[in-house]
Amino acid sequence: MDEIQERILMEVADLHGVPEGAYNIRANGKLASRSTTANIDITTKEDVSGIDIRIKPGTKHESVHIPVVVSESGLKDMVYNDFYIGEDCDVVIVAGCGIHNCGDQDAEHDGIHRFYVGKNAKVKYVEKHYGEGDGRGKRILNPLTEVHMEENSYVEMEMVQIKGVDSTDRVTNAELAAGAKLIVRERLLTHGTQSAVSTYVVDLNGDDASTDLVSRSVAKDQSIQTFNSKINGNAKCSGHSECDAIIMDDAKIIAVPGLTANNIDAALIHEAAIGKIAGEQIVKLMTLGLTEEEAEAQIVNGFLK
Amino acid sequence: MDEIQERILMEVADLHGVPEGAYNIRANGKLASRSTTANIDITTKEDVSGIDIRIKPGTKHESVHIPVVVSESGLKDMVYNDFYIGEDCDVVIVAGCGIHNCGDQDAEHDGIHRFYVGKNAKVKYVEKHYGEGDGRGKRILNPLTEVHMEENSYVEMEMVQIKGVDSTDRVTNAELAAGAKLIVRERLLTHGTQSAVSTYVVDLNGDDASTDLVSRSVAKDQSIQTFNSKINGNAKCSGHSECDAIIMDDAKIIAVPGLTANNIDAALIHEAAIGKIAGEQIVKLMTLGLTEEEAEAQIVNGFLK
Repeated sequence: MDEIQERILMEVADLHGVPEGAYNIRANGKLASRSTTANIDITTKEDVSGIDIRIKPGTKHESVHIPVVVSESGLKDMVYNDFYIGEDCDVVIVAGCGIHNCGDQDAEHDGIHRFYVGKNAKVKYVEKHYGEGDGRGKRILNPLTEVHMEENSYVEMEMVQIKGVDSTDRVTNAELAAGAKLIVRERLLTHGTQSAVSTYVVDLNGDDASTDLVSRSVAKDQSIQTFNSKINGNAKCSGHSECDAIIMDDAKIIAVPGLTANNIDAALIHEAAIGKIAGEQIVKLMTLGLTEEEAEAQIVNGFLK
Repeated sequence: MDEIQERILMEVADLHGVPEGAYNIRANGKLASRSTTANIDITTKEDVSGIDIRIKPGTKHESVHIPVVVSESGLKDMVYNDFYIGEDCDVVIVAGCGIHNCGDQDAEHDGIHRFYVGKNAKVKYVEKHYGEGDGRGKRILNPLTEVHMEENSYVEMEMVQIKGVDSTDRVTNAELAAGAKLIVRERLLTHGTQSAVSTYVVDLNGDDASTDLVSRSVAKDQSIQTFNSKINGNAKCSGHSECDAIIMDDAKIIAVPGLTANNIDAALIHEAAIGKIAGEQIVKLMTLGLTEEEAEAQIVNGFLK
């Protein structure tokens, strides 16, 4: 790993050097390093590019890091990662991807992540996407995430794309059995001429399944964002989705949240709000000595925290 | 007009006999009676079925009733009604449609209504849809409403479909110039195996244009409802959309509201909630002596009032 790759690793996975616990670091489409533990096994897939992560039932307080670093212009990397999380686990999975593109050709990473979450298991999943590099080539990330949740399992997803990704088409599909709970916290910032599409489809299939899906986003410059969320209530369940977006400059934001109640005991709520930063907020911070740009930056940072 | 037609007229337009002011009553695809005033002219279209309603600039406190009654099984009626509302008017337009179908064939009325609302004009528009009759033939109503609003005009639409319409696909498109304001209050109840699709597309094209779109609906039995609302903010504008739905029995409800901000000064908000009647509400009314059915009916009536 060179200096650029190490810096990107820090951006996407908060890693200084190799992490504790199990990990699999992928750089420019190849395995850079891997570590397994007694409870967490990682094996290379034989039919397609990607890995299988198997976490033994009952594994507690362990983590898996599977960051991906792309620093080669022109690389198009597609990877299938399957997570088998045993019953009664309590684990953290960190799966960021960073692209450094200084060249003229596009660099693209498409990750297909499938989660099979066993009964009563608890998973915290963190996914950070980051791009940098002053080349004309685009930095493209198209993640497809599938979450299959068994009875009474709990998944908390933190999905963050703060900077530098030129084009992203994110799709997250989840199906929840009885008593399962899915929490999603998405934070998204686009700038320049970037475009981001974020789609969630959550099927609440079992009694007492629930989801709380909150997206906060900021669109600057000429960037375009589309947020689609669909919650399907197919049982006695509850779902809440919220989309708060700050629009700046000449950006465009589209929010199309959908609720479908197929069961009399489905309770579904949605809220969305799109607006600019209130003038008085900026004035207030300017009276404290900040410039207008600093005031805006502070408000945006606070909103996305 | 026979007794059935007169009863339907009362249901859709609250009319006992002929109304005051201008009116055009259409029964089974034909003109039944018409009245014009000094300020409000109604003329039959020559190229297609339908009428032109021309309201002189400055007309205040006048009303136009254009109810439609269908009591013939197998009739498929399509009508184009254009409203030209002059500047500075303040008028009420009532345009209900009722179908009595005792036969085996479907009865359908499709009304295409276009409103050209002049500067500073104020319009209250009431549209009630109603169906009855114990025949196997369906009662179908597919209204398409187009609203073109000039500077500082104000339109308030009350769209009501409480009972007996087997199938409806309602589309309402509006475009608002600077300072124009559109208020929509929709109330919808479906029962049996009815289906209802309600679509709104509101383009806020001028500075200080605004809209407030509220839909309240109840879906009973095996009925299916779909609510689509799209607000496009293309200027310094504000938009609010709200969809509250009560689900009962084996009904299905789909709500897909969309917000698009194409301008930094567009402030757009959406809320949606789908759920069943709270058990404690029913229990409370039952302790006051109502049966469970009566309690439910009272809550539904209150919700749709």
